[in-house]
Amino acid sequence: MTASRTAERYDVGVVGAGLAGLTAARELIDAGLEVVVLEARDRVGGRTAAGSLSTGDTIDRGAEWIGADHDRVLELVEEFDLELCEQHGAGVDRVAVAGGLFDHEDRFGALPEESTAELRAALERIESLRRDVPLESPDEAPDAERWGGTTLESWKRETMATGAAREAFDAFVRAEFTVEPSAISLLYFLAAVDAGGGLEIPGESTSATQEYRLAGSTQQLSDGLADDLGDAIRLSEPVRRLERRDDGVTLETDDGAYAVSDAIVAVPPPLIDRIDHEPPLPARRQGLVQRMPMGAVIKCFAAYEEPFWREDGYSGSVLATDGIVTEIADGTLPDGDRGLLVGFVAGADALEWSDRPAAERQKRVLEEFGRYLGPQAADPLAYDDEVWSKTRWSAGGYNAAMTPGTLTTCGDVLREPVGRVRWAGSETALEWRGFMEGAIRSGERVASEILEDRSARGS
Amino acid sequence: MTASRTAERYDVGVVGAGLAGLTAARELIDAGLEVVVLEARDRVGGRTAAGSLSTGDTIDRGAEWIGADHDRVLELVEEFDLELCEQHGAGVDRVAVAGGLFDHEDRFGALPEESTAELRAALERIESLRRDVPLESPDEAPDAERWGGTTLESWKRETMATGAAREAFDAFVRAEFTVEPSAISLLYFLAAVDAGGGLEIPGESTSATQEYRLAGSTQQLSDGLADDLGDAIRLSEPVRRLERRDDGVTLETDDGAYAVSDAIVAVPPPLIDRIDHEPPLPARRQGLVQRMPMGAVIKCFAAYEEPFWREDGYSGSVLATDGIVTEIADGTLPDGDRGLLVGFVAGADALEWSDRPAAERQKRVLEEFGRYLGPQAADPLAYDDEVWSKTRWSAGGYNAAMTPGTLTTCGDVLREPVGRVRWAGSETALEWRGFMEGAIRSGERVASEILEDRSARGS
Repeated sequence: MTASRTAERYDVGVVGAGLAGLTAARELIDAGLEVVVLEARDRVGGRTAAGSLSTGDTIDRGAEWIGADHDRVLELVEEFDLELCEQHGAGVDRVAVAGGLFDHEDRFGALPEESTAELRAALERIESLRRDVPLESPDEAPDAERWGGTTLESWKRETMATGAAREAFDAFVRAEFTVEPSAISLLYFLAAVDAGGGLEIPGESTSATQEYRLAGSTQQLSDGLADDLGDAIRLSEPVRRLERRDDGVTLETDDGAYAVSDAIVAVPPPLIDRIDHEPPLPARRQGLVQRMPMGAVIKCFAAYEEPFWREDGYSGSVLATDGIVTEIADGTLPDGDRGLLVGFVAGADALEWSDRPAAERQKRVLEEFGRYLGPQAADPLAYDDEVWSKTRWSAGGYNAAMTPGTLTTCGDVLREPVGRVRWAGSETALEWRGFMEGAIRSGERVASEILEDRSARGS
Repeated sequence: MTASRTAERYDVGVVGAGLAGLTAARELIDAGLEVVVLEARDRVGGRTAAGSLSTGDTIDRGAEWIGADHDRVLELVEEFDLELCEQHGAGVDRVAVAGGLFDHEDRFGALPEESTAELRAALERIESLRRDVPLESPDEAPDAERWGGTTLESWKRETMATGAAREAFDAFVRAEFTVEPSAISLLYFLAAVDAGGGLEIPGESTSATQEYRLAGSTQQLSDGLADDLGDAIRLSEPVRRLERRDDGVTLETDDGAYAVSDAIVAVPPPLIDRIDHEPPLPARRQGLVQRMPMGAVIKCFAAYEEPFWREDGYSGSVLATDGIVTEIADGTLPDGDRGLLVGFVAGADALEWSDRPAAERQKRVLEEFGRYLGPQAADPLAYDDEVWSKTRWSAGGYNAAMTPGTLTTCGDVLREPVGRVRWAGSETALEWRGFMEGAIRSGERVASEILEDRSARGS
């Protein structure tokens, strides 16, 4: 190929127009650089994704909740003049595990006494252990080899004896990380909890990561950034090939080639390997990509005349293992009369149900909504769901998670540049990993790394 | 894209010209079908790969050993009139673990008494447990959920207490499966041992899977098959896109498009995701691809004037954890005077050392050869190594292995066709998985499935 001869030239090429890539691009353009952003989809936003139901109600098909400490997100909300809404929290949570249905104003306190004690002790143990895991180098934790070679499933079985506590823990892990406890190590879980700001074992159902949402959709954050970038963004141009040289990078799409001095790859980790890298990636970088699969989640939406569950004294928050729905949350927007429930099928059930016919899935999910929140919940005005494992340029959701044994062997290359190629995306965040906040911060990180590097080399 | 309008038409398109793809293609051509084989590399053979040292000695950069029960391989050896050589086994094995160097004519009997007893008990336990794992559906084993969520590392720590036994087990797992015990589940290990024909806890150093090698290289097996296929094989044509329709498949390369009634994908599992699938693969198939990384191995070769270790009473077989070399074997061909040692760096060490400069790697490997087999071993006539994690169209070696939690969630789709696309390769073999024999048998399996299916649908 002699594509580089006819390539368009830029200072920086960004692969992926999610929050990480868009943030990095804006910072670099603000610093005076010429930037091109190559996006595979026909829209910006990545895992922020607006949608609407047949009732006209706007939904967040992807990332939704915003924490009170998510400074960068809140700054963008202000900058783009978006409407922030408080998450409804009042009322009783329900926990459906081990064949029982338990109510309590704090879901972690809902189980029978012995199970609640076990579960709380386990969560406190996690909080204590994670403090021994260095944020930037979790592979250097005191017992890293052993914790990295032990699945969270094994740890759960050792730590908790009652079925109810174990199942509530399963539901929690699935809901928060969209993986089975068997698929990640204790060490990765500790590191992920740490980078996500801690467990915040709460006395209330809204945690500090879920205080707000946006009227409209979080995709407005991405759209706002994109508006600033204008024609720097090329949609529907998946990068097929990435050629590294000592003095730059060539990015090839079906439509052209882009010769850049520095590149940022800001796509979900498993998609890094869909690009044909020349020369091949370093073995541990390649190894990490192969060992960091996406979680699996189906996000389900049901709209009702009103949030009827509130009248029954329920918060709308459900945590469950007795069906395929792992979690339900109240997704009602404050300015509408309409009620909205958001449900999550996550982990193994999400993989299995992603391939079932949509009607069958709807029937099953609504049946479970009804079981947990009353017959009205089974009969919404409108229903839809987003199957993240089937979305072509995400290949799963919410995030990628390292498999057991990976953190201690390849984990330290997660943010390590390969020549002039740098890695962004929420998975690479040191703070608020797995959140929009983490994605934005990762974009800031790579942008400032590039500016420093360019300055050091005198470009 | 309107590629299908101008596509060349075939009955069957095969992706990958390794032993699996070549076998399938030959069977289908013999049955009268029009077949095209699309190979990314500029050679056939996949993980069978001939090479030579600066001394002129031929080496197997990839698959090498042949078992006495590997019927299909032995039939090809006869058909292509290749020279089969017996693996040298006489002499004392060395085991270098826990800081000690232990000699015995059976490497599993070399450790101090307590450790030998522990190790033997553990291996016998594996042999006993694996009999409860159904060959075709290991996810239906009695304790599948628990075994699938327990790493082999955790099981090892529970089962063996002495450092020497644990380290010998580590070395064995790395040498046989090129992964760390922390990276696979007990269930997957049992299933893999089962599909590989059992552990054959031996009284001798050559096991039933390593009785023979070929003078020349095992790539001759692939070349022999390819000779029969002629211009059905297109080299240097990686398949970039695979479009599934109800009545067929279109395979697109940089050079053209091929419209076929049935397709066979016979590449290492992680490479399946490098192809742009339209529509996206089913969630569990996609999930499996993301959860089945390649092992990591560096195969090292050193040639000497003669196999001097034999005179010292050694077999040349070493199993070690005291450095980066996991295993050494006598690779001397019987008809040459020359001595050849073959060493393996596997698992985490292979990932790490794949990225080091070749000279540094050579120095370190030969230093260890010298430590285990005397100063002569450190000073060969010629040295070379093959870094499988850096080979572009393998992305690791020897084989892909499912991560913990995967077998019970996605494992059953390993051989399940997706529309008109079928999956072959040694990883999909029911018998002799991970061996050349398994690759050949997987090719036979998909070929006969396609012939049956065509017959059923009246094509």
